[in-house]
Amino acid sequence: MSTRTLEVRLAERSYPVVIGPDLLQQPGLLLPYLKQRRVAVVSNETVFPLFGRKLVDGLRQAGLEPTEIVLPDGEEHKTLSSLERVYDALLRHAFDRKSVVLALGGGVIGDLAGFAAATFQRGIPFIQLPTTLLSQVDSSVGGKTAVNHPLGKNMIGAFHQPRIVLADTSTLATLPDRELRAGLAEVIKYGLIRDPAFFDWLELNLPALLARDDAALTHAIFESCRNKAEVVEADEHEQGERALLNLGHTFGHAIEGVLGFGTWLHGEAVGAGMVLAARLSHRLGTLSAAELARTETIIGAAGLPVEMPDIAAERMLAFMEHDKKNQDGAIRLILMRGIGKAYVDASVSRAALTDFLRRRN
Amino acid sequence: MSTRTLEVRLAERSYPVVIGPDLLQQPGLLLPYLKQRRVAVVSNETVFPLFGRKLVDGLRQAGLEPTEIVLPDGEEHKTLSSLERVYDALLRHAFDRKSVVLALGGGVIGDLAGFAAATFQRGIPFIQLPTTLLSQVDSSVGGKTAVNHPLGKNMIGAFHQPRIVLADTSTLATLPDRELRAGLAEVIKYGLIRDPAFFDWLELNLPALLARDDAALTHAIFESCRNKAEVVEADEHEQGERALLNLGHTFGHAIEGVLGFGTWLHGEAVGAGMVLAARLSHRLGTLSAAELARTETIIGAAGLPVEMPDIAAERMLAFMEHDKKNQDGAIRLILMRGIGKAYVDASVSRAALTDFLRRRN
Repeated sequence: MSTRTLEVRLAERSYPVVIGPDLLQQPGLLLPYLKQRRVAVVSNETVFPLFGRKLVDGLRQAGLEPTEIVLPDGEEHKTLSSLERVYDALLRHAFDRKSVVLALGGGVIGDLAGFAAATFQRGIPFIQLPTTLLSQVDSSVGGKTAVNHPLGKNMIGAFHQPRIVLADTSTLATLPDRELRAGLAEVIKYGLIRDPAFFDWLELNLPALLARDDAALTHAIFESCRNKAEVVEADEHEQGERALLNLGHTFGHAIEGVLGFGTWLHGEAVGAGMVLAARLSHRLGTLSAAELARTETIIGAAGLPVEMPDIAAERMLAFMEHDKKNQDGAIRLILMRGIGKAYVDASVSRAALTDFLRRRN
Repeated sequence: MSTRTLEVRLAERSYPVVIGPDLLQQPGLLLPYLKQRRVAVVSNETVFPLFGRKLVDGLRQAGLEPTEIVLPDGEEHKTLSSLERVYDALLRHAFDRKSVVLALGGGVIGDLAGFAAATFQRGIPFIQLPTTLLSQVDSSVGGKTAVNHPLGKNMIGAFHQPRIVLADTSTLATLPDRELRAGLAEVIKYGLIRDPAFFDWLELNLPALLARDDAALTHAIFESCRNKAEVVEADEHEQGERALLNLGHTFGHAIEGVLGFGTWLHGEAVGAGMVLAARLSHRLGTLSAAELARTETIIGAAGLPVEMPDIAAERMLAFMEHDKKNQDGAIRLILMRGIGKAYVDASVSRAALTDFLRRRN
């Protein structure tokens, strides 16, 4: 199976996204981006034994001096105190402004290690080595980095673009089924917000993706990254179009927040959140019944929850009011005008939203 | 006395620096930069009673909803845990991406509140209201924000430009003499690194500055900010010329670090550090004896320490090796080729530096 490469074009901050098998076993791919021997491999206790040990050995053989920073696994560790552990290790090993951070893991590691790199000595280079479908199609591309705060997800962060992204599809072989499905939520999202042809392709190829067919996965990751790159290129700092990438996320973050981060996977919450967004769009008259049905069907077929958990509307709203996309106190929702046509709507009143969240339909 | 305004030209991140008396009593100056009613006033327990209460009242009368975030005073509080207090307050008051942070205080408050604004929800606007000479001539202009780490000053930070800087010279009336002198260290620095004519002016006008003559102070602040703005415009992210602004700082940070932050004021350590840089330059043959003497004289006349404290060379070096300006393990020093001509030198060996720090001459 061949490797595919995509360029994220952001002037002097442009970078390649390389997608294909066995990339982590080719440290030579990283060497052009490492200006000195000191390099940190930030990972977690689940991923590091699977891929990190081998990566570190390869880097050492290439003459580098890798420092291992292995954090506990899980969204509940995406905190300021984990960040302090990374800062401490970088300083103890005398990292400087030319040292490079490698983020080896899923979205939590990528976001956290990326934020550490964004803020260590006011910014050092970093490289994304995503090992989950979710991070390969979403968080590793676009430069959003962050940690969580008890009062909200990703509340503390920065925009900091990686120097290169290596999406090694071989790492997906060991990914639990539940996480594969959660990753598909973000893949489906690209079809829903801006790419009806990709959505058609997904409807046909979902069985192949669930069976982890190599060619299908590579195509889905490539198309997802292409869509994400186009959005980020047009709106790096989320002043406009980039907000559309949050389809299902305002509802989804609230679901995650109320249940406690980690009860539902992010992709699961986004899956149920996209159904809510589609249902609200239908109720507002912008999405047809047939398009709502296609949305519900593909999310269900991906093995994602179609129904949100049993949460009081008021609790959902309390979380939604903390969303970063809000402006001037109004809740900004991403809704649909059709499959492939998402838009921002800040005009839904609290009363209408409460009523909708009570019926969930 | 009239108000002077300077523009820091950084394309879409350009902003004015306004210098003059009684600016904090004119909340109207801030209104064009506040897009919503929610605004945080971050200050400390010393400065807030002096100027903050009045500022908050003025903002409230102008129809805004200010939130007071008052931290303990002192460099020892420029930490990640103070930062958490700011994040907590912003989230508890439902701040969003259009909310604005006002930093009212000296460099510690400006750096810390600026970093909070740089990272809260991946970046919200902030405004610098510096109330010390040091922060008016240095830290409030240029967009460097940071907090300290036990292993080094300003190790965690970001570049984040303010929307406007109001340097209210009336606040200097209550500034302790020791802090006024510490601020003069950075003023003298601009003369030493790039502006011989300003250095000549300073030699003549130092008595007027020490006597807090209004016109002299306004001129010194304006010329300092102009020099800093020119450097920052040419090199926002410290790839080259901006490093020259650190004349005296590599030595100075080490002095502060060994003594414990807060024992010597930052400006005092920079004063002694600039003398060390000048002496080393003289020893290396790039600075004449007459120019070294002028440097020592003006620093002594400003009431700043000319001699570093009694610290072993090895302890100084251990701190200097953590400096952010270092690359590939080499210590980068800012030295002088003459008054008004600083340059970067990474070629001084550890042995030569140890020997110099033992003799201090």
